[in-house]
Amino acid sequence: MRVMNSSTAELIPEFGILSGRWAQYGGLGDLPFGAMWCVVPPGGRADTDQHAERELVVVVQGSADIEAGGGTQTVRAGQAALLDADEAHVLANSSAGEPLVTLSLYWLPAGQEEPAAGVGAGTGQADAG
Amino acid sequence: MRVMNSSTAELIPEFGILSGRWAQYGGLGDLPFGAMWCVVPPGGRADTDQHAERELVVVVQGSADIEAGGGTQTVRAGQAALLDADEAHVLANSSAGEPLVTLSLYWLPAGQEEPAAGVGAGTGQADAG
Repeated sequence: MRVMNSSTAELIPEFGILSGRWAQYGGLGDLPFGAMWCVVPPGGRADTDQHAERELVVVVQGSADIEAGGGTQTVRAGQAALLDADEAHVLANSSAGEPLVTLSLYWLPAGQEEPAAGVGAGTGQADAG
Repeated sequence: MRVMNSSTAELIPEFGILSGRWAQYGGLGDLPFGAMWCVVPPGGRADTDQHAERELVVVVQGSADIEAGGGTQTVRAGQAALLDADEAHVLANSSAGEPLVTLSLYWLPAGQEEPAAGVGAGTGQADAG
């Protein structure tokens, strides 16, 4: 058993928030998805993200406001949001005091190539408006 | 975007705890893993589980005591535990008052067949010592 901890992970500023990509962990073996912790401070808001991978955003602390498909849904700890391939989305934390932490998993739809370096690594292709 | 919520999911008693398998959600498309919510009441403890799939246990509420490999690790909300294929494990909640909720993802290692009906669906092969 191997335990990964968002509160001790190496986080880097990336697309407007802090991300802790699981590539930092050695020895995890072959996973069928890419994974990263996302940490959004109170009042924080990520850049618009859009990518070929499907994405599962698992909220593990706090509450996320996720903008996608022309609307916004609040996704709390104990909930998860599944985004389609190429679905533009914004991750925001409207809390006044509590950080938002998610575990985002991403993978290319079946039949496509293996995941590239990771979600959000490109230009962002911001087009949520 | 599709939101799945552990607090409104259909839960069934299974291997000593409550599980909410994501098979209950229609229209999720092809996922590279099986998924289920696991809910363990305060003081609860699952049966020993062991299966060919690797498993990622993401703690989304409360704190888990996971027994595996001859030891026990406490895994809190904001942390995740990766179990190897065929690694016997027990999920327990030693809290006096707070429920434990996890999202467990599971998949067969690369090169093996597609996941069967699900983790823990069999006899359990209890052998954790």
